[in-house]
Amino acid sequence: MEKPLLGSSFIEDEDEETESSRCMCCFSFLGQKLIEFWKDTLHFAVKAWEMGRSDPRKVIFAIKMGLALSIVSLLIFWKNSFHDIDIAQYSIWAILTVIVMFEFSIGGTFIKGFNRGLGTLVAGILAFCFAELSLLAGNLEEVVIVISVFIVGFFASYLKLYPTMKPYEYGFRVFVLTYCILMVAGNRTREYREAVATRLVLIAVGATVCLVVNICIYPIWSGEDLHNLVVKNFKEVATSLEGCVNEYLKSIEYERIPSKILAYQASDDPMYKGYRTVVESKIQEETLLGFAIWEPPHGRYRMFNYPWKNYVKVSGALRHCAFMVMALHGCLLSEIQAPVEKRRVFRTELRRVGAEGAKVLRELGKKIEKMENLGPGDVLKDVHVAAEILQKKIDQRSYLLVNSESWEIGRRPREQVDLENVSDSRDSHDMNLGFKSLSETVLDLRSVSAAWTPSATLSASSEGMFRNQPSWPFDGGVSKEENCTTYESASALSLATFASLLIEFVARLQNVVDSFEELAEKAKFREPILNTPPTKKKSRIWCFMFTM
Amino acid sequence: MEKPLLGSSFIEDEDEETESSRCMCCFSFLGQKLIEFWKDTLHFAVKAWEMGRSDPRKVIFAIKMGLALSIVSLLIFWKNSFHDIDIAQYSIWAILTVIVMFEFSIGGTFIKGFNRGLGTLVAGILAFCFAELSLLAGNLEEVVIVISVFIVGFFASYLKLYPTMKPYEYGFRVFVLTYCILMVAGNRTREYREAVATRLVLIAVGATVCLVVNICIYPIWSGEDLHNLVVKNFKEVATSLEGCVNEYLKSIEYERIPSKILAYQASDDPMYKGYRTVVESKIQEETLLGFAIWEPPHGRYRMFNYPWKNYVKVSGALRHCAFMVMALHGCLLSEIQAPVEKRRVFRTELRRVGAEGAKVLRELGKKIEKMENLGPGDVLKDVHVAAEILQKKIDQRSYLLVNSESWEIGRRPREQVDLENVSDSRDSHDMNLGFKSLSETVLDLRSVSAAWTPSATLSASSEGMFRNQPSWPFDGGVSKEENCTTYESASALSLATFASLLIEFVARLQNVVDSFEELAEKAKFREPILNTPPTKKKSRIWCFMFTM
Repeated sequence: MEKPLLGSSFIEDEDEETESSRCMCCFSFLGQKLIEFWKDTLHFAVKAWEMGRSDPRKVIFAIKMGLALSIVSLLIFWKNSFHDIDIAQYSIWAILTVIVMFEFSIGGTFIKGFNRGLGTLVAGILAFCFAELSLLAGNLEEVVIVISVFIVGFFASYLKLYPTMKPYEYGFRVFVLTYCILMVAGNRTREYREAVATRLVLIAVGATVCLVVNICIYPIWSGEDLHNLVVKNFKEVATSLEGCVNEYLKSIEYERIPSKILAYQASDDPMYKGYRTVVESKIQEETLLGFAIWEPPHGRYRMFNYPWKNYVKVSGALRHCAFMVMALHGCLLSEIQAPVEKRRVFRTELRRVGAEGAKVLRELGKKIEKMENLGPGDVLKDVHVAAEILQKKIDQRSYLLVNSESWEIGRRPREQVDLENVSDSRDSHDMNLGFKSLSETVLDLRSVSAAWTPSATLSASSEGMFRNQPSWPFDGGVSKEENCTTYESASALSLATFASLLIEFVARLQNVVDSFEELAEKAKFREPILNTPPTKKKSRIWCFMFTM
Repeated sequence: MEKPLLGSSFIEDEDEETESSRCMCCFSFLGQKLIEFWKDTLHFAVKAWEMGRSDPRKVIFAIKMGLALSIVSLLIFWKNSFHDIDIAQYSIWAILTVIVMFEFSIGGTFIKGFNRGLGTLVAGILAFCFAELSLLAGNLEEVVIVISVFIVGFFASYLKLYPTMKPYEYGFRVFVLTYCILMVAGNRTREYREAVATRLVLIAVGATVCLVVNICIYPIWSGEDLHNLVVKNFKEVATSLEGCVNEYLKSIEYERIPSKILAYQASDDPMYKGYRTVVESKIQEETLLGFAIWEPPHGRYRMFNYPWKNYVKVSGALRHCAFMVMALHGCLLSEIQAPVEKRRVFRTELRRVGAEGAKVLRELGKKIEKMENLGPGDVLKDVHVAAEILQKKIDQRSYLLVNSESWEIGRRPREQVDLENVSDSRDSHDMNLGFKSLSETVLDLRSVSAAWTPSATLSASSEGMFRNQPSWPFDGGVSKEENCTTYESASALSLATFASLLIEFVARLQNVVDSFEELAEKAKFREPILNTPPTKKKSRIWCFMFTM
């Protein structure tokens, strides 16, 4: 029996030990949690402070909100001390109005105010009618009220789901709320008229305070925000385009593509971020447009019916271009990559098209920012010339983009190439490449398979990254050498694809310029100030200075 | 002086006439407006009725909303008849809770309820502390209250602008509202505790009614909606892909591109609509995800921590593919179009890749719909084989994609082509094409310029359509013939681009399958039911049946 005793005493000892150690653990755990919580709070505070520093309008908005609430409270206190009616009971309406109506921008405040006013008014009229009806019902008064609440609730909830009713969703809510409160709470006091009147007065007080504070103290306009967003979009696409072209020419491959890009989530990659921001900004633009059309003429937008829709249209045309940048970036993400040497052949031309394209976008962005018309020259001329030079170069060197080895109509005779290679020594490096891609030297095949191998052997998977799997060429039971040849041909064509997409991007610029001109006309942009008569050379230098 | 008199009498007559005609005009104008209004109302009613028929859940939601409001009204009436306290004064809280909390889906209701509860609780505690403090202030009580309202309003408004606080925006609003009401209205009655308790009870009543009605009567789950949305997205991309490939092969050009497509707005074009829906659905997916993670296990999703995020991830991977379909559609929209005959050469292969790609997407969609794992075979095998065949064909016929006339390293000797053309008669039509593109026959140039002319001469502009301007080749002072050659070469390369993008699409499918497998594993999809042992042939037929 000793053993169990010993055992049990031993267990008891262990229990005590574990209990004390558990307590210790518990405390240290709690302590750790507290420290973590403190650190998180500090981190949050620092971030919140930075948010205010980077966009002081947010601080101003918060101050304005606090001020509006304080003014309403003061008014209620002041009214209470003079009148006999218990205004405090109804004070909720003024406060509710401020809290609900006080939006970041003036346009938002107007929309909410309109919704609130209309909803309250319609509900008030309807409640008055139904209340008179319910009084006629005698004993069944409450039954009539409950049924009317059901009917009103049903129709308002159903109609607010109607697609075109979305901007008035808040109005429907206010309508149902007002109706129910008037019927249910009013039923007790039987003072519908007084209740309705007091409510309307208090809502008007709240709305007035809102509007005065929001408009008079540092107004924040959605129109201005929309304008800036469109300008920013131009810069983003320009940066993304230049980034894509330059990275492509540097032949910097993604060894591991961030899984966020593959799932189209936000990522820090600058090229990706640029066009993604533009594609994603669509919803924001539409929200801002919805607010901006409610705003009165102000600041630089001194015109009724200001063409805000055209800003969104320009941005839409820009988005159509951004999709081409997206496709260009797709070439960078692709597993099938053109060999470095071949890219080098078209380097100058590709870079020029990229730079000119970005220049046009930046210039259009600047013009919108300054609200200026385009100058006398054709803004697209340079980029068109660059694209044409690229196309001609492709035309002249298209032998680099294909693999004549597999041609069914027969291979190009080697001798002739050699011959011409000797006779035309202007571009011997390129010639050599052309020659190589057409010959069957072992070196050539080796260099191609070397270019392919790294991506194929990358198989270690780390968190947040997808393996760059060699999913192409798909293993269809063919020999490795055959695969290599297929890959070589596909990789060369990928360069053609890149160039082709870039040219398509240039073609789409016309649409952006057209939209810009429509906007400039409708918004009456001023003529650009030119000190010197525009000569071709000067305007180019001037354009160049813009991109600096 | 007669003339003026005559003149004036004449004018008077005219005035009378115009007055009566004005009245008539006025009436007819009013009548017209009334008829128009009546027609619009009828149209709206019909549309609203159709909305209910197509999605009966909307009708059910509206009925539930009406029911919840009726129940709350009944409860308030019933309570009022028993108690002495004037509950009606506070009844607004129960009604407000129902109106605000009652969302379309269960998840949405939970989130709103959580926000409302937390906001009220925190505000109640804070108001209690400040109220005691303000009582100590004596005469300055109201000053303290107004200052506290400012501080609370400021901090709540500032913090709700913090990016990660967005889901709790409503909670902040409730917090400020509750705090202000308690301080301002409570100040009069000095019954903070009673006010807080009554409010909490009424909010609890409202919330309970909401939850019971919303969960017990035909619950609408966001998770189910998310699931269906992802399945629908697969079908949309598949349709869009097939549409793009088929239209491309049919060589149906957009004579006039709808300006809506150029500005990336909603359009009826089926190919465009398919991928646009998928790209646009991102926001909707994220909203549904935000609701779905709040929902308890239900229906087919009997698991805590159900991997809803993986549904969004699969959809993200699909979107990454959809961007390639977008780029393919870009080839259709492009001004630079490959000639019909050249497309015809690759017709079978292109169509097969398109069909197989769509088949894979549809199969994955069906699998997600049925919540089934993939079968034993490789779902991507067929599409990979098809892509490889396409690549090989391109490899063999890449002479069709380039223009050797401009080659700096010299033209292909014509004699040899002729020779081989004779010796290899298997594919004489293609050979002929290859030969044509390499020769300088007048016929060839004419056919190309004919292919180019229609788009260049389309210059009549109609509303909503952009002119298909010949903005490329850009007129750089070169001869028309030279332009034609450049165009010919660019147009051939456009076919290479299309094929290249299609192959890239196939490569991206791997990523979709990977995401699907991750989802299937986490969500514990069941194994597919196979009655017969899977042989290669049968599984193919089975796959084929799926696409029917």
